[in-house]
Amino acid sequence: MSVTFARGFRAGGVAAGMKPSGRPDLALLVADEPASAAGLLTANAFAAAPVRLSRTRLARGRAQAVVVNSGQANAGTGLRGDHDAGRVTQAVAGSLGVDEALVLACSTGVIGEPLHMEELLAAVPALVGSLDEDGGQAFAEAIMTVDTRTKQATAERGRYRVGGAAKGVVMIAPDLRLATMLGFLTTDAPIPGAQAGALLDELVEPVFGSLTIDGCSSTNDCVLLLASGAAGGDLVLPETDAWRDIGEAVGEVARSLVAQLADDAPGARHAMLVEVSGAATDRDARVVARAIAGSPLVKAAMFGRDPRAGRILQAIGATGVEFLPQAVHVRIAQIPVIASGEVLMAPGTGLDEVRAALEERDVVITVSLGNGPGAGRAVGADLSYEYVRINAEYTT
Amino acid sequence: MSVTFARGFRAGGVAAGMKPSGRPDLALLVADEPASAAGLLTANAFAAAPVRLSRTRLARGRAQAVVVNSGQANAGTGLRGDHDAGRVTQAVAGSLGVDEALVLACSTGVIGEPLHMEELLAAVPALVGSLDEDGGQAFAEAIMTVDTRTKQATAERGRYRVGGAAKGVVMIAPDLRLATMLGFLTTDAPIPGAQAGALLDELVEPVFGSLTIDGCSSTNDCVLLLASGAAGGDLVLPETDAWRDIGEAVGEVARSLVAQLADDAPGARHAMLVEVSGAATDRDARVVARAIAGSPLVKAAMFGRDPRAGRILQAIGATGVEFLPQAVHVRIAQIPVIASGEVLMAPGTGLDEVRAALEERDVVITVSLGNGPGAGRAVGADLSYEYVRINAEYTT
Repeated sequence: MSVTFARGFRAGGVAAGMKPSGRPDLALLVADEPASAAGLLTANAFAAAPVRLSRTRLARGRAQAVVVNSGQANAGTGLRGDHDAGRVTQAVAGSLGVDEALVLACSTGVIGEPLHMEELLAAVPALVGSLDEDGGQAFAEAIMTVDTRTKQATAERGRYRVGGAAKGVVMIAPDLRLATMLGFLTTDAPIPGAQAGALLDELVEPVFGSLTIDGCSSTNDCVLLLASGAAGGDLVLPETDAWRDIGEAVGEVARSLVAQLADDAPGARHAMLVEVSGAATDRDARVVARAIAGSPLVKAAMFGRDPRAGRILQAIGATGVEFLPQAVHVRIAQIPVIASGEVLMAPGTGLDEVRAALEERDVVITVSLGNGPGAGRAVGADLSYEYVRINAEYTT
Repeated sequence: MSVTFARGFRAGGVAAGMKPSGRPDLALLVADEPASAAGLLTANAFAAAPVRLSRTRLARGRAQAVVVNSGQANAGTGLRGDHDAGRVTQAVAGSLGVDEALVLACSTGVIGEPLHMEELLAAVPALVGSLDEDGGQAFAEAIMTVDTRTKQATAERGRYRVGGAAKGVVMIAPDLRLATMLGFLTTDAPIPGAQAGALLDELVEPVFGSLTIDGCSSTNDCVLLLASGAAGGDLVLPETDAWRDIGEAVGEVARSLVAQLADDAPGARHAMLVEVSGAATDRDARVVARAIAGSPLVKAAMFGRDPRAGRILQAIGATGVEFLPQAVHVRIAQIPVIASGEVLMAPGTGLDEVRAALEERDVVITVSLGNGPGAGRAVGADLSYEYVRINAEYTT
């Protein structure tokens, strides 16, 4: 289902032969008519050529197709990269018979490696031929790199449907240094382009932005939202019931995709959710949540199933965020491990219960800073031998 | 030699029985007379009780003794921690017959675990008895936690001597979650207290601040400089030949200690030096250098002896520092891997030479941003299985 759950979209995917594995590596998402479109694109200064191309085209707030290749990132490839990205969207636009300015592009794979243009261009007719109203699964498969499984989600509220697919666990790199997080959300709600951007910024960015596997934001990260309007009815505008409906559905799909991404982190024993409240601001809360979820020492402790709350204390304290140490409380799986700024280490303070809780796959760390109304969260995974292996082993 | 190389200092160390291993765990550095003193203390909001005590006492710019225990960090221990730290310095001051306000304290070990006060206080007479003009070695041994070897350095310029000892590889935690980086510099130059602080800020902070093993700044990090004046002569003031002499010697000792710390990172195959030039400011250069040396993906690639320059590109681009992508050049071991913002991946572009260079223990990554006169460096280590093991395995 995924991206084709929303009405007015078709999707597909083929194996163009750009990946050494021979797996599907070229995906296409198409709206029946030009759709409202918005994107969250990487802030990395070395943004890949397709990201720069998509950023320019998204300025109009409309798009009709997204072509995604996996295998080569087309980043760090200079002017040739820009030229190649343009040729890809030109070929797809020609084959679809749509305006090239409405075609977006995403790439994921080896940074610095040029697109395998010959294979890619030769596969465009088959790619367009693969488009199907039930093509979400094929699309989700063809965008994978080191993912062990597809990430797909759907939600429905009122008359609107939202679908989504995603890939990647942030700059992870197995057999040939493949990388990047990509997310695609579709809806059939009639949302104007500017409001699609607002939805992304307000509801989707905090969700995808909460994901931190290794803190490395890629040159190719990209989350797109396309709204076809195929559900019909009035335009969806802020501060209406319809806006709340679509917001709920979009949020649900985004959270599901991010949870699936964290769950597929290489070798991880745990998916880690850090919830912070009591910060001066939401931003402060998020900084603290990301510091904990991103700490290699906390991550290694979780992997070791060891409740080393001192490392959480260290991570909170190093953020520079304002709070009174003696007002800080931390729980792991609802069991207190830091109370009033002090680490609970004495026998009988629940450490055995925490250890037992760390046998579970999902770990929730709850932090209260006692300094205001700000709240935020981060989603992560533990630090495993497999993370090192997958990122270190050289296999050419 | 280390801290006792400079005249006017004695040092010692004993096994007080606070460490489960039974190794030396209590160290003392004493100046014959009250010395000029300055410190770089952790900015962590959960600064340990001894750090807070030392910060207060250093405000006077003078100190005569530093007592260091390893095994318990005395951080996250609340009011009891403050009380314990005070009692330790009181006992040491009493046994030495010096003003308690001139006694500083450092701790390193398990966060949240209270000091083993009974063993510690019982060992103070033996600790004072161990003081010796050649006690630098014993001091350097007793401050170790997970270190596999002591870190000591000396330098001499003109009539002045500088000695130093250090321990730790930043929040590393093996058998019982021991942690923290501590550094101690001594000199016999007659430097006023305020100028000792200036020396630390200008020359020592950039060196110790360039070290990033896992990016986790501890609750207990502490670098102290004590100047006994035992070399005699005029007061050493800025913009004199004597100031340049002492600055050179202090810088040499600091760089040596930091290199020794990086070299002892657990399981590391490489010590990594990242040198950045061409940034708009020195600060920008340092941000980029630390981003590269701190990137888990770059570290894992180095461990895998694989020249994945795309990860360096990613790390530079994610900093938010300003530069033109096409002006960026990167070399590994002097061999170009990124030129004009493009990753060099084609055959014949030196990748085999880079791979060969990565067989060496020391790896130098050189970055030119082409955007100004700013320069900076970072020192780190690669990301190994041993790092995960040592931080994950639970051994109580």
